[in-house]
Amino acid sequence: MSENTPAGPLDRRNFLKSVGLAGAGAAAVATGARAAETADKNITEVQDWNRFLGDGVQAHPYGSPSRYEKEVVRRDVEWLTVSRESSVNFTPIHALDGIITPSGLAFERHHGGLAQVDPAKHRLMIHGLVDKPLVFTMDDLKRMPGRISRAYFLECAANSGMEWKGAQLNGCQFTHGMIHNLWYTGIPLRTLLDEAGVKTTGKWILAEGADSSGMTRSIPIEKAMKDCLVAFGMNGEALRPEQGYPVRLVVPGWEGNMWVKWLRRLEVGDAPWQAREETSKYTDLLADGRSRRFTFVMDAKSIVTNPSPQMPLKMKGPNVLTGIAWSGRGTIDRVDVSLDGGRNWKAARMDGPAMPLSMARFYVDFDWDGRELMIQSRARDDSGYVQPTKQELRQVRGVNSIYHNNGIQTWLVRENGEVENVEIA
Amino acid sequence: MSENTPAGPLDRRNFLKSVGLAGAGAAAVATGARAAETADKNITEVQDWNRFLGDGVQAHPYGSPSRYEKEVVRRDVEWLTVSRESSVNFTPIHALDGIITPSGLAFERHHGGLAQVDPAKHRLMIHGLVDKPLVFTMDDLKRMPGRISRAYFLECAANSGMEWKGAQLNGCQFTHGMIHNLWYTGIPLRTLLDEAGVKTTGKWILAEGADSSGMTRSIPIEKAMKDCLVAFGMNGEALRPEQGYPVRLVVPGWEGNMWVKWLRRLEVGDAPWQAREETSKYTDLLADGRSRRFTFVMDAKSIVTNPSPQMPLKMKGPNVLTGIAWSGRGTIDRVDVSLDGGRNWKAARMDGPAMPLSMARFYVDFDWDGRELMIQSRARDDSGYVQPTKQELRQVRGVNSIYHNNGIQTWLVRENGEVENVEIA
Repeated sequence: MSENTPAGPLDRRNFLKSVGLAGAGAAAVATGARAAETADKNITEVQDWNRFLGDGVQAHPYGSPSRYEKEVVRRDVEWLTVSRESSVNFTPIHALDGIITPSGLAFERHHGGLAQVDPAKHRLMIHGLVDKPLVFTMDDLKRMPGRISRAYFLECAANSGMEWKGAQLNGCQFTHGMIHNLWYTGIPLRTLLDEAGVKTTGKWILAEGADSSGMTRSIPIEKAMKDCLVAFGMNGEALRPEQGYPVRLVVPGWEGNMWVKWLRRLEVGDAPWQAREETSKYTDLLADGRSRRFTFVMDAKSIVTNPSPQMPLKMKGPNVLTGIAWSGRGTIDRVDVSLDGGRNWKAARMDGPAMPLSMARFYVDFDWDGRELMIQSRARDDSGYVQPTKQELRQVRGVNSIYHNNGIQTWLVRENGEVENVEIA
Repeated sequence: MSENTPAGPLDRRNFLKSVGLAGAGAAAVATGARAAETADKNITEVQDWNRFLGDGVQAHPYGSPSRYEKEVVRRDVEWLTVSRESSVNFTPIHALDGIITPSGLAFERHHGGLAQVDPAKHRLMIHGLVDKPLVFTMDDLKRMPGRISRAYFLECAANSGMEWKGAQLNGCQFTHGMIHNLWYTGIPLRTLLDEAGVKTTGKWILAEGADSSGMTRSIPIEKAMKDCLVAFGMNGEALRPEQGYPVRLVVPGWEGNMWVKWLRRLEVGDAPWQAREETSKYTDLLADGRSRRFTFVMDAKSIVTNPSPQMPLKMKGPNVLTGIAWSGRGTIDRVDVSLDGGRNWKAARMDGPAMPLSMARFYVDFDWDGRELMIQSRARDDSGYVQPTKQELRQVRGVNSIYHNNGIQTWLVRENGEVENVEIA
């Protein structure tokens, strides 16, 4: 994989030194359980977890993370919104790995707070320009034919929105944390619409949520018929409440606001509804005062999650750079990484199954000599689209919008290992 | 997909009747938020979650399931073991979908209780027949080159062990719930062994855990070099404590006991260690009094999780049958399902990416006429291996063992929809 390594090859001598065993002394390890403590690692006691029985299997019917991981949580920013019921928190992407977001850490965006819906009382209605209006209970949905499970990313259109005007927030959790990638189980929306029989005049659908905001968005019928899901499962279990339990709409590759949670109503019509969330919100104000509308697709984007402001470099020598990439137009097929602010680029190592409209993970193994780095990543999808720079985006769209910023991010790594969010002029 | 449907095609008229809209009356739905309540669904009030704001985004930094899902938990069986510190609980596979097991629901098997290990004090040592003994901190492991993420099933060798002697436990959670399928992040074990330099005399490794049981197992060096992982991540986040936080061994396709948790020591030797867990335990007693040993690989197996004793059929008409399959020898390439006790078989619809040594999900959409069913599933992997009947297994291995029962399971669906664990003579 040497062609994928931006820096030089792994310096094996330095690495051994770093793990404390370059000298001959530390190699004289003893046999058996306590050998680790005899090495040059500053551990001398027998630990409690080796001396005493732990909890039995009845103690935690539903498990939770280690007490030592308590800082890895969703975080919100109190000053960002007037109310925290209509607000957002952020996925701690800096502390995660792989391609699936843990259910307990997937960011939340509510417009009327977290609705706690009783599935026995919840109904989904399909009506409007259809032959037969239908009402489904949750039991009805779960016995529909054609159930499938698929991994899809969901990104809020406002993710990285603060960065339009320049580097603002110090941490990828806050600059890029309105993203998650979950494995949904549900029924293709097409199956339900076909059951109702969409009239030839039906060109759009309205999706409505059952929470106190009664969220509504218009979706073209072509998208509804292509790959949308009416999902009741997530990462193997039931949807979590904050993701729309007991049922949400999945609109693969399109902005998160359209994935209506607590889905209770689908109306078929002949034109978009011009709802609040597609007129005064979720439209992109340009420099000349006009707005882009119906900017549904989330373009290709990537972010280096480690190192990043919340994940400084701790040591010189071998280090692992990692990050995530996604595209609403297809499958990520390449991510390039620069350590010098975009002058030189090398392909990162892609890991895991490449799935369309799902998150991709990339790694770069590199050797840090202690000098400043300017780290960037640049995603490409199988449509040929390449993630632009922020400057390129601003030239076309100005700086008025808070939506659809998919520009390349820059992290400055200082000589002490600390990492800062910066802009390259 | 008609060739995949054992029963007749979906009866659309019956289905519409079942969702309460076959008559013309119920089709007269109103427009707007409360329309669902006007339908023939017995819901008349405006629900509280539509009237009042829910919790804000600061309320749940780490999320948990809906209060309406509180029955979906790991369960243990109190009489099964003398102590619950050395015991097992079971994944609620009957209530899950897709291919990834939720982290909070992945079954636990402890030999000395759940160890709560401080990652700052934890060390992993590699020693024995190596050129350079090494001790790794968690930080060291996280900057090793070649980090990858992979989904693998883990099955306890004793899964379905009670069923050797006949149908015993009424629920697939208890008969087949010692299985999970998690997405691991870690370093190939080969990378660490190569760093230490295995001597040509090194043929086996011993893996040892840091918990109070000091679990040890011997693993052939060929397997260690082929695909084992030293994993610190799981389903996107840090390993959970009950899965070995901060680091466990991943031994893809092989019995779960070898996947040593809280991994602290890897010794390279020239022969197996004959540890307790590979001599008096985890060996398979045959009818003639001899024991099979080192029966590492988990052969292909499948189970219908729904319908099943914990998931009865609620209604006639369209229903979804689903289940899971896995093989320690490769990739599941086909699952056949019988509704009549093995007389007739049809291929199920496989869903999701086919990944080696990972769980597969299958579905059969069928129409239930209310008559008794005898449901079975039969997995095949890409080595050509086909899951055997229990009778075939017993002819070869007798009924003394509690390990490696991968025989075909039978569920009897009664006319009232209840489901029972039965044996076919």
